[in-house]
Amino acid sequence: MPDQWASSGLDLHLVVDRAHGLRAGLERALREAIREGRLTPGDALPSSRALAHQLGVARGTVTQVFEQLTAEGHLVSRPRSGVRVAPRTPAAAAPVLAPAPAFRPATDGFDLRPGLPDLSMFPRRQWLAATRHVLQKIPNTALAYGDPTGDLALRTALADYLGRSRGVITTPEHLVVCAGYTHALRIICQALQGTIAFEDPTLQDYPALAARLGLRVSRIPVDGDGLVAGQLTDEAAAVITPAHQFPMGVTLSPQRRRELLDWARRTGAVVIEDDYDGEFRYDRQPVGVLQGLGPEQVVYTGTVSKTIAPALRIAWIAAPTRLVPMLRSALAFDEAYVNVIDQLVLAHLIRHGELDRHLRRCRSRYRQRRDRLGRAVAEHLPGARLSGIAAGLHAVLHVPGATEADLLGRLAARGVAVDGLSRFYQDPRAAPPGVVVGYATPAQHAFDGAIGELVAALV
Amino acid sequence: MPDQWASSGLDLHLVVDRAHGLRAGLERALREAIREGRLTPGDALPSSRALAHQLGVARGTVTQVFEQLTAEGHLVSRPRSGVRVAPRTPAAAAPVLAPAPAFRPATDGFDLRPGLPDLSMFPRRQWLAATRHVLQKIPNTALAYGDPTGDLALRTALADYLGRSRGVITTPEHLVVCAGYTHALRIICQALQGTIAFEDPTLQDYPALAARLGLRVSRIPVDGDGLVAGQLTDEAAAVITPAHQFPMGVTLSPQRRRELLDWARRTGAVVIEDDYDGEFRYDRQPVGVLQGLGPEQVVYTGTVSKTIAPALRIAWIAAPTRLVPMLRSALAFDEAYVNVIDQLVLAHLIRHGELDRHLRRCRSRYRQRRDRLGRAVAEHLPGARLSGIAAGLHAVLHVPGATEADLLGRLAARGVAVDGLSRFYQDPRAAPPGVVVGYATPAQHAFDGAIGELVAALV
Repeated sequence: MPDQWASSGLDLHLVVDRAHGLRAGLERALREAIREGRLTPGDALPSSRALAHQLGVARGTVTQVFEQLTAEGHLVSRPRSGVRVAPRTPAAAAPVLAPAPAFRPATDGFDLRPGLPDLSMFPRRQWLAATRHVLQKIPNTALAYGDPTGDLALRTALADYLGRSRGVITTPEHLVVCAGYTHALRIICQALQGTIAFEDPTLQDYPALAARLGLRVSRIPVDGDGLVAGQLTDEAAAVITPAHQFPMGVTLSPQRRRELLDWARRTGAVVIEDDYDGEFRYDRQPVGVLQGLGPEQVVYTGTVSKTIAPALRIAWIAAPTRLVPMLRSALAFDEAYVNVIDQLVLAHLIRHGELDRHLRRCRSRYRQRRDRLGRAVAEHLPGARLSGIAAGLHAVLHVPGATEADLLGRLAARGVAVDGLSRFYQDPRAAPPGVVVGYATPAQHAFDGAIGELVAALV
Repeated sequence: MPDQWASSGLDLHLVVDRAHGLRAGLERALREAIREGRLTPGDALPSSRALAHQLGVARGTVTQVFEQLTAEGHLVSRPRSGVRVAPRTPAAAAPVLAPAPAFRPATDGFDLRPGLPDLSMFPRRQWLAATRHVLQKIPNTALAYGDPTGDLALRTALADYLGRSRGVITTPEHLVVCAGYTHALRIICQALQGTIAFEDPTLQDYPALAARLGLRVSRIPVDGDGLVAGQLTDEAAAVITPAHQFPMGVTLSPQRRRELLDWARRTGAVVIEDDYDGEFRYDRQPVGVLQGLGPEQVVYTGTVSKTIAPALRIAWIAAPTRLVPMLRSALAFDEAYVNVIDQLVLAHLIRHGELDRHLRRCRSRYRQRRDRLGRAVAEHLPGARLSGIAAGLHAVLHVPGATEADLLGRLAARGVAVDGLSRFYQDPRAAPPGVVVGYATPAQHAFDGAIGELVAALV
């Protein structure tokens, strides 16, 4: 039952809805008048006595409304000048702030930086169909707080998939679903103490994260056989990329695998296997995971970032039995981090063979691209050499007689973005001259042009 | 060009595909034979000499294959017994582990514990339609690593939504999208040093999380006006639930709001506003957020866990300008944590008014339930009293003359699960006797039965 109320001092019509009481209605009407600009900063309100009289209510009700709106910052009350509409603060409170720096700054030209799959291959139709299926089927209870270690349906599908496609020896109870590899590494680091070794070269963000979480960090060099395992001493853990070292592309040799596991068995340390692109192997069968040789020594980690898309933010840990209690304790104050619907969508895609089909399509495309890159280098850059081409989504291009700065400069001049090797080394001066070429990154229509510009810049 | 190879010692046919070279083909054939059980643990392989002869290749090729498969753990090589298939280790390596404890253990009977919305109201049709729209429209580049602070489209939609529905004064650049409130609190704590105050009572997991992140924790009591702000001293931050204190349900009074913001202005501390159920207010307009009164003193946090579903794992921070660099620095080594597709789905639902429509449906249902609970208590439990009923999804039921243990026992005997108040107090003995009733939790068909059992147990 709205009242019309016209203030004599202000040309203002307040519609007071009494449905929930006059006090609530008046509060609301004043708030809206201020929000809509009918009452503007500095406007004087009628006295509580006058307003109470006009509305036929107790003066105390009006006083309470004024007090509430003053507490909310809509009104100000000053001796002798009565109650007025407060000055606007939004301009002061929300000044212009620069956007946050991008995780991966955009590039205008040809993007051949490593780290991304061809995102035009994202299985949009399959993802949508699986989402429809999940939303039709899941019980309401599945929409509550999920299992902090990940939904059982996804962990079950993953245990099977990882066993058959990567040789991982695990069970759903040994798996933890995470919101990306960084999240996985964070959880693992929270379960560790002491020193953690990283490969040199590696992505610098990872040792930096471990250091910020309170661990000491050591760096172990990589040679043509992968990590020089013999240099490990009393570290509690070592993070490695055995299938396709990032960024050098080396596969850890059988001898080094043995050394690494012997070290872990002898010292009680754990090996953290970052199997970021292990699904992609072109010239022979995938190299089995290190974890399969030492399930009690190796914490295996994998992700959909290279197989489907980083945007999904899904990764996983397959942990040794003795580490599971520590990981669960690290998760103890956490809710789950990954949307349960997305977990069930991925589980559906794995169970119905959609992930395998998608991987076959990707493998075929990336192998063609790798071969195309290899031919272009062989034809146009006779002194140059590609390494790390047996697997993964990137290769290292070595061009004798040129410095990295020179190579990057010539490429940038043609609008080609790649990563120099030096950014991955603890001491950039220790890096061999070369650039990392992510040949999966461009969309298919842009790939030939990108490779053409790459070799033209370096001829 | 497959070869058929039959070992004389083993009744075994290996199909060796030479397409990628004999070495790769032989490796693959042996691996598959072991995986499929045609070669079983303990089986002896032909000598490398015999096998090389049979296949017409260099003996070194066969030796390399054996070495690779030995490194992978498929074969074992022992003096005098030659090369044999390795014993299976999965049983030893992946022993039976108990499932992780549930974040919220299941209950068989009537679930009236607080913390969940009615999950049967999840807007499945709208979520699917928005997912279809997003998957049809987004460019491939949106599927890469997202903005660590959240997708700009969601932050823009949220800044508008929070301003008009909650009175939050913010911009997209002041917002950070997180994977749930726990993640938000973690990021905020990482940007703080010193002591952080929590309400007493509160959910104990939150002070525990802050302590684990290295902050000192103080606890400030709550009375009928909310947090006793005058007891704050030199804390760097205070976490509060001003709209509807959890679990007591009090709304922070205007006087206390002023005291709290005065304290923050005077000392430079920040107030962390946990607006977990602020969208639900039944008897009058929503109480404006504290942040609207002091955008430079208050870190505002909100979530979809109570408005849509916890399973989605989406929450947000609206930070004061001076805190934004610290939050970005806390995020510096993180990738984004929330699926970009889900962020765009939520942005779509907000922009198209679907979230508002959903909230109106929920508000209406929860108001009816609250009224139903109130009538049941008034009719059947004349000495009892409900508090905290003006807002949110839960109320506190006080029953004079009964201990909490007595109440919980009588309820459990009828299969009714609620939370006792004492679990939320730093000193459980300080808790008034009473139980927290989450009246949004049951599905609609179970609600009347649940309330019936609740009052029957306590008569």
